[in-house]
Amino acid sequence: MPHAAPPGPHADPSPGPRRLWRGAHLATLDDGPTPWGWLPHGAVLAQGPRITWVGPAADLPAGLAVDEETDLGGGVLTPGLVDPHTHLVYAGDRTAEFELRQQGASYEQIARAGGGIRSTVAATRAADDATLLRLATARARALIAEGVTTLEVKSGYGLSAEHEARCLRVARGLGQALPLTVRTTALAAHAVPPEFQGRPDDYLDAILQWLPAWVAEGLVDAVDGFCESIAFSPAQINRLFTAARALGLPVKLHAEQLSLQGGAALAARHGALSADHLEHLDAAGIQAMAAAGTVAVLLPGAYYHLRDTHCPPVAALRAAGVPLALATDHNPGSSPTLSPLLMMNMACTLFGLTPEEALRGHTQHAARALGLQQRLGQLAPGLQADLALWDVDHPRELASRFGHRPLRRLVQAGQPVAL
Amino acid sequence: MPHAAPPGPHADPSPGPRRLWRGAHLATLDDGPTPWGWLPHGAVLAQGPRITWVGPAADLPAGLAVDEETDLGGGVLTPGLVDPHTHLVYAGDRTAEFELRQQGASYEQIARAGGGIRSTVAATRAADDATLLRLATARARALIAEGVTTLEVKSGYGLSAEHEARCLRVARGLGQALPLTVRTTALAAHAVPPEFQGRPDDYLDAILQWLPAWVAEGLVDAVDGFCESIAFSPAQINRLFTAARALGLPVKLHAEQLSLQGGAALAARHGALSADHLEHLDAAGIQAMAAAGTVAVLLPGAYYHLRDTHCPPVAALRAAGVPLALATDHNPGSSPTLSPLLMMNMACTLFGLTPEEALRGHTQHAARALGLQQRLGQLAPGLQADLALWDVDHPRELASRFGHRPLRRLVQAGQPVAL
Ligand SMILES: [Zn+2]
Ligand SMILES: [Zn+2]
Repeated sequence: MPHAAPPGPHADPSPGPRRLWRGAHLATLDDGPTPWGWLPHGAVLAQGPRITWVGPAADLPAGLAVDEETDLGGGVLTPGLVDPHTHLVYAGDRTAEFELRQQGASYEQIARAGGGIRSTVAATRAADDATLLRLATARARALIAEGVTTLEVKSGYGLSAEHEARCLRVARGLGQALPLTVRTTALAAHAVPPEFQGRPDDYLDAILQWLPAWVAEGLVDAVDGFCESIAFSPAQINRLFTAARALGLPVKLHAEQLSLQGGAALAARHGALSADHLEHLDAAGIQAMAAAGTVAVLLPGAYYHLRDTHCPPVAALRAAGVPLALATDHNPGSSPTLSPLLMMNMACTLFGLTPEEALRGHTQHAARALGLQQRLGQLAPGLQADLALWDVDHPRELASRFGHRPLRRLVQAGQPVAL
Repeated sequence: MPHAAPPGPHADPSPGPRRLWRGAHLATLDDGPTPWGWLPHGAVLAQGPRITWVGPAADLPAGLAVDEETDLGGGVLTPGLVDPHTHLVYAGDRTAEFELRQQGASYEQIARAGGGIRSTVAATRAADDATLLRLATARARALIAEGVTTLEVKSGYGLSAEHEARCLRVARGLGQALPLTVRTTALAAHAVPPEFQGRPDDYLDAILQWLPAWVAEGLVDAVDGFCESIAFSPAQINRLFTAARALGLPVKLHAEQLSLQGGAALAARHGALSADHLEHLDAAGIQAMAAAGTVAVLLPGAYYHLRDTHCPPVAALRAAGVPLALATDHNPGSSPTLSPLLMMNMACTLFGLTPEEALRGHTQHAARALGLQQRLGQLAPGLQADLALWDVDHPRELASRFGHRPLRRLVQAGQPVAL
């Protein structure tokens, strides 16, 4: 791997203290030919929130002046993890549904007991802002404790002008209160709310009316929908995406999870950042995604929890050059997990990814799924200094084990995070 | 649920301070008709290491004199978790094998690269005692951080008189150094070591010679074996168990994991505490286990990691009244996990247990799999005060989510554990 020239004495005019981390091996995840971007005995230099230099510690000039130097004392340093698909803002609990299912109840019995997305919508609408923020903060802290420094948060349990905006404000609030880069996604097209029962097109009309105000308030980084026979049709999603793009917003889509709808190809036609789930994706969808540069966000937690047996077409996606990202898909119904490391292991064990693909999927390609690949997701000069130090000898250990807690240190935008 | 009379002023003459915990709901996991042994707004009183009273906090007499009172501040209190099947003492790393497999390597290629149990045996023999203790301590601490207060540890990576004894001493050392009840199991019959290549019966003769000295040194609480076409035959295990029983030792067995060998029925004939794995168990084995009171220890981590698709016969075991226990089976090859909570979720999702069966499987029935059911595993007077406080509203949440960290407090033998 070619390295940049050693840092000069006045490397970067950007503000903030000059910090140096050394004493660990690096998995930079750069785009060079070395697996993992492996850089043994490496060092990272940052000024303020940004990396200014990455290279072998031996290349550091003697007497380099920094404001703070940290000896990491061994382990492997990687980019902070990126979770590019979560439904983190909600109230209520759905574990009673899981228990009923395990006790042998039918789906009808569970529905009669009041289960499903609608129960979460009711609980979310009933919760006040402080409660929503408290609950979402606890979930975000759990993700941080596993190495997450960047997080996407979707709305989708409000399903009204007022409650969707409230949820998006809570998501924004997370980014202000916690050491996280937060991207918000408006997922009003998650389900048809009770007020629009049987009138999905009327509900879409309403969303298109609400969207400009949310955008004006700065609440929306992207627009998402759920394209499925039980949710919205490709024609309806097409209307939503046309409006979103006209507002200058990037789009992403819950696509081909339960059946092939052609949503991924539709998303690609709108230049989508990502299409997510993809268990039933076909060859045409893969080609469209590859041509558009749309990232495939795989969600093994939902696949596992729903006992799905229809794998996303990983080998064909890989062959087509579609970037593979991973996410927790944290939500109370189909993926009640807060562990990106477990998602990395499940992506290997259930979907056939390699450990390196899994780590790149929760860093580099997850960043791309949020349109942030120029800003974070690798260890490289110019990118945000988001660093995770792991108590392992080799980065393959991260995805090869499951149910473990190897995180030892975390740095977000140049600042140490209290764990 | 009937409750004991309120505690008197001088309830128990046993030594040690009198401690009271209140301010949480209890899942006592008692044997009464109430699911979970649910006891809202409960309290637990202990003297020294032992519980003296469990009941509704409202039944506590006013002015009860205790040495220490703890308001738990909400949450659910359960017995501490019991992990009744681990291979915690070893050196070396096997994640390179996993990576090779994910990269598409064949089993032959992996074997040529030096994988398998033998690589762990070589690394374990080469490690000094201090290294083995340090590595095992880190793993045990990870289990404690998930709520474990009782742990079984098997040898089986030494495979010689010297190295098996060394590993059993390390296991004993864990119980002395950490807030844990540790049970040791001699698993010399794990694999045939290189010195006895092709001579499994000679190796068994050797084990039978070594065993009495280990017993005399107090290193062995039980004897285990691996009954499989690639390991030891039922006839060989029968010789081992006959010798173990003659020494007064209980037995347990790795049985029917990869194929039906009749090991579970054989173990039951020897009055085994447990038969473990059981993916290929048949009706005769189930009946023998039920008749003998042998516990079925299910190991969903190994099932998941090996991508097994042949489920253990849970419904038939349940119908026959065989107690179902769970364990991590922590080992570097087939179950590199340190998360009993994840095992509880996998037992539900992959094997069809209910959340209550999963929790009882990692407490009450796990204790029985170690012969400790009179000593711990439930919240009841006379049992050890091993208490786990969880940040949940209902105990079903523990097994219904995955990749979460709800433990808030832990008490082992009456003493608070630093988390
Ligand atoms: Zn989703
Ligand atoms: Zn085992």
